[in-house]
Amino acid sequence: MTSPLNPLSRSEDEQGAQVLEKIERVRQARQHKFYLRDTHITLSHGSGGKATHNLIEGIFGPAFSNPLLDRMDDAATFTVTGQSPRLAFTTDSYVVNPLFFPGGDIGKLAVHGTVNDLAMAGARPLYLSAGFILEEGFAIADLRRIVASMASAAREAGVTIVTGDTKVVQRGKGDGLFINTAGVGSLHPAAHVGQDYLQPGDVILLSGPIGDHGAAILLAREALEIESAIQSDTAPLHTLVANLLDAVGAQVHCLKDPTRGGVATSLNEMAQASEVAVVLDEAAIPVRPDVRGICEILGLDPLTIANEGKLLAVVAPEAADAALAVMQAHPLGRDAAIIGTVQAEPAALVFMRTAIGGKRVLDMLVGDPLPRIC
Amino acid sequence: MTSPLNPLSRSEDEQGAQVLEKIERVRQARQHKFYLRDTHITLSHGSGGKATHNLIEGIFGPAFSNPLLDRMDDAATFTVTGQSPRLAFTTDSYVVNPLFFPGGDIGKLAVHGTVNDLAMAGARPLYLSAGFILEEGFAIADLRRIVASMASAAREAGVTIVTGDTKVVQRGKGDGLFINTAGVGSLHPAAHVGQDYLQPGDVILLSGPIGDHGAAILLAREALEIESAIQSDTAPLHTLVANLLDAVGAQVHCLKDPTRGGVATSLNEMAQASEVAVVLDEAAIPVRPDVRGICEILGLDPLTIANEGKLLAVVAPEAADAALAVMQAHPLGRDAAIIGTVQAEPAALVFMRTAIGGKRVLDMLVGDPLPRIC
Repeated sequence: MTSPLNPLSRSEDEQGAQVLEKIERVRQARQHKFYLRDTHITLSHGSGGKATHNLIEGIFGPAFSNPLLDRMDDAATFTVTGQSPRLAFTTDSYVVNPLFFPGGDIGKLAVHGTVNDLAMAGARPLYLSAGFILEEGFAIADLRRIVASMASAAREAGVTIVTGDTKVVQRGKGDGLFINTAGVGSLHPAAHVGQDYLQPGDVILLSGPIGDHGAAILLAREALEIESAIQSDTAPLHTLVANLLDAVGAQVHCLKDPTRGGVATSLNEMAQASEVAVVLDEAAIPVRPDVRGICEILGLDPLTIANEGKLLAVVAPEAADAALAVMQAHPLGRDAAIIGTVQAEPAALVFMRTAIGGKRVLDMLVGDPLPRIC
Repeated sequence: MTSPLNPLSRSEDEQGAQVLEKIERVRQARQHKFYLRDTHITLSHGSGGKATHNLIEGIFGPAFSNPLLDRMDDAATFTVTGQSPRLAFTTDSYVVNPLFFPGGDIGKLAVHGTVNDLAMAGARPLYLSAGFILEEGFAIADLRRIVASMASAAREAGVTIVTGDTKVVQRGKGDGLFINTAGVGSLHPAAHVGQDYLQPGDVILLSGPIGDHGAAILLAREALEIESAIQSDTAPLHTLVANLLDAVGAQVHCLKDPTRGGVATSLNEMAQASEVAVVLDEAAIPVRPDVRGICEILGLDPLTIANEGKLLAVVAPEAADAALAVMQAHPLGRDAAIIGTVQAEPAALVFMRTAIGGKRVLDMLVGDPLPRIC
């Protein structure tokens, strides 16, 4: 019997021809992906999805090219001398709107986001920098609240903010407050992860229900007056990662927090970097009913909206059960699930076996339905 | 005979009473400096001068307090394990306006600024991060130019941009482009520098003429139509620092690049952190005639405007001549000069012996005559 996660055994698949045709179209489109046609920045360039990739591959990648950057992981890893431990280094700017939302604020997000980017490299987060770009007229009381929230998030995550910078721009040239955090961490000895390390047969785990952050931001925006208990899932994932690496470190091939662009974009990045296929089981992907409801009302796909406290782990098949048990034993992984597998072919694509037995190609996020989500 | 750099031997000083009165006023004012009265952000909070200090000491310092941050140096230094080399870590956001100016652009500045912050910690700059906050509608052609300039500045400085991030904000919620760079470097074995390490008797060196960057930005702003050859001095200072540390490392007590707030603010920071007096000889401070002219026309003091390719070095007296020779032998230190000395008293103040024989207390920059200089 064919596994439900292997929808591409063509003999039993009446939709095979259509799927193959789609594959060919996507392949052809991707041959052009490094050609950036745009003449001006659009909001889509900040989506974390396809347009962001085009911008990165079209401009930043070629200009700054070097072996560390070219891996395009969320954090760069290196040793400063032969003797020292391997380090991870990462940066993110935060422009989320509104600044305060159910479950968090820009300050908490700025700490968790960078802690998580270090964790996804398999690193223990140690030191953060904090750069503030303030707009003239911003209320000092709001700044105090945000800074207190950052300090508390840093304390809880066990990281230290060791260096910072403050700039001010004129009224109308910013939007209240933007924060950049960069982070330095030391790699777990067992960490050998990268989005190009996926192997056919690997199993894909997700640490919990998706879409909460995106839905919370959406609800916090003024235009919507829907009563809901949805909160951002923003949380620091480094202890969950440490537990995973302690238990099955050598079998963990990739870790990724599906933030901007969501699970669909993260898995497409992995599938492309590793030149493998990712096959998902839609029924296995946890989504809270209220998040699913909001997404249906607004025509959004929970698979392409941002999470701030979830991770995808790709592990060797023999370690899948142990990895799942470790995740479920952690407060941030209680609802973890196995959501898919990795296949050799067709390379660079993500497929979804839908709940009603169909299958579809799952692409990266195109456009930006939710600008300034983080 | 009293040294010309010791204007405070009261017996020969008919202005002594007035100076002492001013000292007392400044001291009293400083006792209140950690109390932030402002309710909203003003451009002065981004000046790098007094208001920036009030914001940092009033909000960021108390909230994030830890031994590394509390030093308030331009970069934090630490070891990741007992065995590894000491590292330096720093961040700066760049919001300079205009984006392109004589002698440079925001991209070049974003590389040099962070390279220099690492160098001022006594570190060899190694890795940079780059975070971009783009405004919807920004021209991709301008982005390409800026990114190419960053890449070329990084190549010339021998640093690698290893990780990055891109965000986009809606039209009218940004100003074209803001860049954050953070940097990691490894400390020179002889580096033991800090703004709290000044000792009475130390000698203060300046690597070249001041005010070029500020004047260049000023001239680049549309309102001014003055013909001038003034260019920003933006330059990476790490090889000059390495030469200095190779030659007289143990005798170098402090290194600082006088950017926002200029030489006056940098020296006040040192005097306060080290609880010493700094005494300057105005005639010894190099300022290009055209820069001096622009400053006079516009009522600006070259001592409070930004430099992006100059450094202040505070060295033990026995190393002063050697340090000066090393600086003058480097292309970026050809016009280096000894500009002052350190005294024990009156603590936390900077004095200027003026060219006409008077003396004045030189305070930090107050207000912000030149917003968004870097």
